[in-house]
Amino acid sequence: MFEKVLVANRDEIAVRVMQACKEMGIDTVAVYSDADEDAKHVRIADESHHIGSSKASASYLNQEALLNAAQATDADAVHPGYGFLAENESFAAAVENSDFEWIGPPSDVMANFGEKTEARKIMAAADVPIVPGTTEPVTESAAVKAFGEEHGYPVAIKADGGGGGRGLKVVHDPDQIESKLQEAVREGKAYFDNPNVYLERFLENPRHIEVQVIGDKHGNVRHFGERDCSIQRRQQKLLEESPSPVLDDDTRAELCEAACRGAASADYVNAGTVEFLYEDGEFYFIEVNARIQVEHTITEERTGIDLVKWQLRVAAGEELSFSQDEIETRDTAIEFRINAEDPDNDFTPLPGTLSTYKPPRGIGVRVDDGVDEGDAIAPFYDSLFAKLIVTGEDRAEAIARGKRALDEMTVEGVPTTIPFHRTLLEDEGFLANEHTTKYVERELADE
Amino acid sequence: MFEKVLVANRDEIAVRVMQACKEMGIDTVAVYSDADEDAKHVRIADESHHIGSSKASASYLNQEALLNAAQATDADAVHPGYGFLAENESFAAAVENSDFEWIGPPSDVMANFGEKTEARKIMAAADVPIVPGTTEPVTESAAVKAFGEEHGYPVAIKADGGGGGRGLKVVHDPDQIESKLQEAVREGKAYFDNPNVYLERFLENPRHIEVQVIGDKHGNVRHFGERDCSIQRRQQKLLEESPSPVLDDDTRAELCEAACRGAASADYVNAGTVEFLYEDGEFYFIEVNARIQVEHTITEERTGIDLVKWQLRVAAGEELSFSQDEIETRDTAIEFRINAEDPDNDFTPLPGTLSTYKPPRGIGVRVDDGVDEGDAIAPFYDSLFAKLIVTGEDRAEAIARGKRALDEMTVEGVPTTIPFHRTLLEDEGFLANEHTTKYVERELADE
Repeated sequence: MFEKVLVANRDEIAVRVMQACKEMGIDTVAVYSDADEDAKHVRIADESHHIGSSKASASYLNQEALLNAAQATDADAVHPGYGFLAENESFAAAVENSDFEWIGPPSDVMANFGEKTEARKIMAAADVPIVPGTTEPVTESAAVKAFGEEHGYPVAIKADGGGGGRGLKVVHDPDQIESKLQEAVREGKAYFDNPNVYLERFLENPRHIEVQVIGDKHGNVRHFGERDCSIQRRQQKLLEESPSPVLDDDTRAELCEAACRGAASADYVNAGTVEFLYEDGEFYFIEVNARIQVEHTITEERTGIDLVKWQLRVAAGEELSFSQDEIETRDTAIEFRINAEDPDNDFTPLPGTLSTYKPPRGIGVRVDDGVDEGDAIAPFYDSLFAKLIVTGEDRAEAIARGKRALDEMTVEGVPTTIPFHRTLLEDEGFLANEHTTKYVERELADE
Repeated sequence: MFEKVLVANRDEIAVRVMQACKEMGIDTVAVYSDADEDAKHVRIADESHHIGSSKASASYLNQEALLNAAQATDADAVHPGYGFLAENESFAAAVENSDFEWIGPPSDVMANFGEKTEARKIMAAADVPIVPGTTEPVTESAAVKAFGEEHGYPVAIKADGGGGGRGLKVVHDPDQIESKLQEAVREGKAYFDNPNVYLERFLENPRHIEVQVIGDKHGNVRHFGERDCSIQRRQQKLLEESPSPVLDDDTRAELCEAACRGAASADYVNAGTVEFLYEDGEFYFIEVNARIQVEHTITEERTGIDLVKWQLRVAAGEELSFSQDEIETRDTAIEFRINAEDPDNDFTPLPGTLSTYKPPRGIGVRVDDGVDEGDAIAPFYDSLFAKLIVTGEDRAEAIARGKRALDEMTVEGVPTTIPFHRTLLEDEGFLANEHTTKYVERELADE
């Protein structure tokens, strides 16, 4: 096992990885920008290394500075967390080609899943259902028209390198084809340096359901059940729950096995998430997130397995010690993302100082965070600073526990998503499980 | 279900019960002494009622004041917590004979188990192994001598109403019989108003292992696995873990079934613990704790079942909704009792103000407490103010997680048991599972 791990990230995920390291007896190295000189992830690390000024491009996205930090601190391995360089295949390759172990999927696996059409091909070849669409780039309006006639409207035109809603254009009517196609190509070029676009049937009211997998270096891939992340705002997940309350047991088994099969067919190693849309009883692969995710916590609660520790173990060459049947899930777990956001200004991130920060406690309550009371939330990075995870015997108990915990949680100094979550837990559509990924924008726009 | 519950207790157990009530949509009433006017259990309750001055005898032990509080606040039911009046059969009977439901074992069940010889008779009749001993009171030295000749020395002379080490005398040699018998009778009279004593073979190096049970009003009794509470100081538990690392699966099953059988034979209702000593591969019933215990938390972590909610449900007449086979345990959970104690003065309770109080967070960490930062710990009551509960896949992970969490936990203003726990988690005897109930006093006296 590694003796020293550098965590190339900040905030709660850096703290999370370091907690795993400490429990495994591994020393930790924090990296920090100017703004994070006194951040919690620096305070709890065994040692720390300055990597640049506050802007992410000068620090947490600065590959050279990160590699230099690993060199200077004599680290054995680099954990990228999520965000920043976690899915950057050139950084993964640079770490692989250095003296340090990369705690994540190999750069070639990452590259395969980074291109959406390639990912679709891999999954289709492994008999994983994909949204009806093209696996080759599309350049002509006529191809869009033919696709719309075959599969019906709306049709999604998607940039090959896209994600998070960027480079996605929806065609509701043949008249829109020409202009939307041009827009998608333009955005693909501008944002992702890739003009290729492809087509998919556009699902209007899907649930977002994803499957956690981990592969080792000995050819074993296991799944750890699914997560339902349909509560989103502007394509950003806000609340995740497991199990998905809309799946029956047979569909759940099919979905999880498909995810595992697809990942195994691509020689997947380390932690990853296979994401699907689910509508009208059918599920469709959309993409793989080749990293640990924010919401990995709810899977840990249900399985009792520490996923971050397994990231470290498989990176060090250990074999997964459990068969698929030995991974048992129970209970319902819900994660609430606690972001510093301004509810009066379209929920744009709003930095500030946490003059009061009292996380809730007691049965079924877990809090992962990157702050303590008195800490500043920097304006340069993501607005997420804490995650409240509640677990109950069933969805009703988890929701009741969530309400109790949100009531006990006190944050002053910055506005947060806590009021949003409290509203959601009283919302009839959410309680009745009628929500889809569009629900928050359509039904809860005023909250 | 009840609409309003009065919690006749204070500190963490009052907070714990109120959290369960809130999650069930039940209003809560706190009671408080002068010293607790601004205590956490008062702050989180829906309403609160003053019951007397700071001394427990004038407030939390004042039956009339508690019944008046229930009347004045129009409560439906009374939860006694643990300690104070939780096992006082006259209080239980007074609540039963009032308009309020008693959330605990019926007073007659409590009375049966309150007398140790009666409890031993019940268990022996249900084929539960008991420590070799007498089931009838003993008055003559000759009886002690005969017992010693049959079962060997040392022999324990125990007051019938005793507990917590009071009224217990150990005879190592026939010469001591006369004086020890007189002392035991005298202590029984003085402390418990009961001069009866009985005899038991004295186990010199036992483990303390106990089984959680719950009975409903429809004749069902279930067990929830065992807890190992062998880490004790002056007969007070300091650390509890589950499962017991010294039991094999067959013995565990036998022990848990015996506990369940014994409780069922006495028509047990509500939560209780059947306590055993375990030595040389054999277990022996010692007593029943007819209440929820401090360490119920580790059983909740392993089963995913909220025991306090089930106390409320069975008190309201609900039937246990799960068969014995449906109660599944997994993982290892450890509870660390965080007491305000002076390590330089034989660990006597030391009150003070929590100038800093930062509970740990993250995966596998639960904290139940009765305080927030800035609160005073009153000198009138028990020194326990928080419980740190950690859960891991196995004992090694739980111990590693415990170390990590204890490192993150910051308490200033009062000395605590945190340094003791940190020492224990490095102690070879504890790590190798060689400890018994005498271990702390024998091996860790300097810590």
